[in-house]
Parts: sequence; structure tokens; C-alpha cells
Amino acid sequence: MKNENVIVLGVDPGMNNTGWGVVEGKNMNFKHIANGCIISNKKWKVEKKLENIFYNLEKIIEEFKPMYGAVEKVFVNINAQSSLKLGQVRGVILLGLARSKVPIGEYSPNQIKKSLSGYGHASKDQILKMLSHIFPEVKIFNDDSGDALAIAICHLMNVKFLDEKDHY
Amino acid sequence: MKNENVIVLGVDPGMNNTGWGVVEGKNMNFKHIANGCIISNKKWKVEKKLENIFYNLEKIIEEFKPMYGAVEKVFVNINAQSSLKLGQVRGVILLGLARSKVPIGEYSPNQIKKSLSGYGHASKDQILKMLSHIFPEVKIFNDDSGDALAIAICHLMNVKFLDEKDHY
Repeated sequence: MKNENVIVLGVDPGMNNTGWGVVEGKNMNFKHIANGCIISNKKWKVEKKLENIFYNLEKIIEEFKPMYGAVEKVFVNINAQSSLKLGQVRGVILLGLARSKVPIGEYSPNQIKKSLSGYGHASKDQILKMLSHIFPEVKIFNDDSGDALAIAICHLMNVKFLDEKDHY
Repeated sequence: MKNENVIVLGVDPGMNNTGWGVVEGKNMNFKHIANGCIISNKKWKVEKKLENIFYNLEKIIEEFKPMYGAVEKVFVNINAQSSLKLGQVRGVILLGLARSKVPIGEYSPNQIKKSLSGYGHASKDQILKMLSHIFPEVKIFNDDSGDALAIAICHLMNVKFLDEKDHY
């Protein structure tokens, strides 16, 4: 694994906006491949939004063939209704990765911030600034896409610690 | 719709046990078609459980070709962690129904209890007893399957009020 280029798809789940970013990494060198956001019409029913997210996720996996997926571990200090909503999107994303046999890494917000900035309580702005240092030429679609790229980079910085048994 | 037999798949989502029941109905006559439970190994990772649930749900839809799906609206008084877990399963179930173009009805626990027993605060035992009156010959796989059958019956009792515009 150490001498191999690794492609990671980071995903930031959201019912109306699911950010995604694909990064290739080797020995702490990161190459931006693509980023974007799966946008659902707010007026759609939940099931149609979920279908849209799943459909687009499958397309993204098909196109970029990531070796890993990475998602944020979920805050549990949000309320139950928000957790349910986020959970529904998260379930669909985990399913999409699992069906394509893409092993999943999960990281807490603090782990992600710490990996990128060295500081677990970095602000959103600091993370975006760090991203623009890592990828100076890259146009980041929106904040959700930025979060997804940050998650992908976090995974690339931690993947060497993963054991085969942790894989899907 | 009124003079047509309607087949409904009720689903009771759960990470380790997802109950399901298929009921055919016409003019308040209910015929049991099948019931069961999608069981996941507790030791599996979440993504593998979700994949198992999705795979089996697709098989069930393919076999029984329901015209509607029905799921419980979720309690919001459970904690955030439980909501997230349940949300993940629910997302996968809504996705499975939507991808098969099965429109979804959602009912609160009270609506389900009231439809079956006339009483919104009926106990689980009262609902199971009512089910054994409706389907005296039927072996119900487990409590989750019973809940799923109750949800399907609730939908059959309410579906005539649904407008075409409510459909997926």
C-alpha cells in the first residue's frame, strides 16, 4: 500500500447537498482528481432525494473507481429529527459504497480538522484555506465539496494505519 | 382503485431485524400474502447490514410486486444516536422502494394502532391479538413481521384517501 497511489472518495452527506471529492495520494502528496455536489430539489420527497443521491454516487464511483470511501462520523449532539434525516442520507451513501465493494473509513470532525490543520478545533475557514494551499489551482464547487475533499485527505493521511481486517 | 385488489408491502425498519409483511386488500377484506424478517448478523459492519437489507428488500419487491410500500413515521423522542441508526436503515428502505417505483405511505404509530384496534394507544399485545383475528391461520414470523403486517393493513385502510398527486 505504501508505494501505491491510492484514490479516495470523500463524501459529506446532506439531504439537499451531498458534497463529494476525489483525491489521489502517495506518500503525503495529494492530487486533486475531481469534486462536486449532488444537489436535490428541495421540493422533492425524501425518497426521490435519496434515489438521486444514490444514482449520482454510483456514477461517481463508476467514473473514478475509488479504492476507499471516507465519511464523517456523525455528531450525536444534534437533535433526533436532524439525526434521522442525516441518517437516511448516510445509509444510502454507505450502501452505495458497500455495493461497489469500496471499503469505508470514518473520521470524527476533530480527526479531520486535526489531519488537515494540525488543530482539532480549526474553523471551517481555516480548513478551506488549508485546502487552497494543498490544491492552489483547484476550483472547489462549494463548502460541502470542500468538506468532502478534507475527509478524503484525512483518510489518505490515516489509511496506512488501517489493517486488512478493517476492510469491508 | 376502489374496485381493484391492492398489494401493500409494510416494512418495519431495524438495523439487525427488519420486519416485512405483504397484504392484499379489497374493500376492507385483507388477505395475507407473506411475512418475514430480514436478519443481519450483529457482528457485521453497518454498511454490510445495509447492503443485506437492500438486497433482500429488492428480492421481496421483485417477488410480490407491491403496488405500495408503507413504513412507520419515526418517533422523534428517541435519542440522536438511535435516530441516526434507524435513519440509515430507513434511508435504504425508502431508496429500495423508490428505485422500484413503489409509492410510499407513512403512518405514525398512533395511526397504525388506531387503524387496527380503533385505539391510538393500544399495546403491542393488543395489535398482535388483532392481527391473529384478521389472519387466524397465519404464522407470524416475529414481532417485527407483525408490526410490518399492521403497517400494511393501516395503509390499505387509508389508501383510498390518497390522491394521485401524493404518489411517487
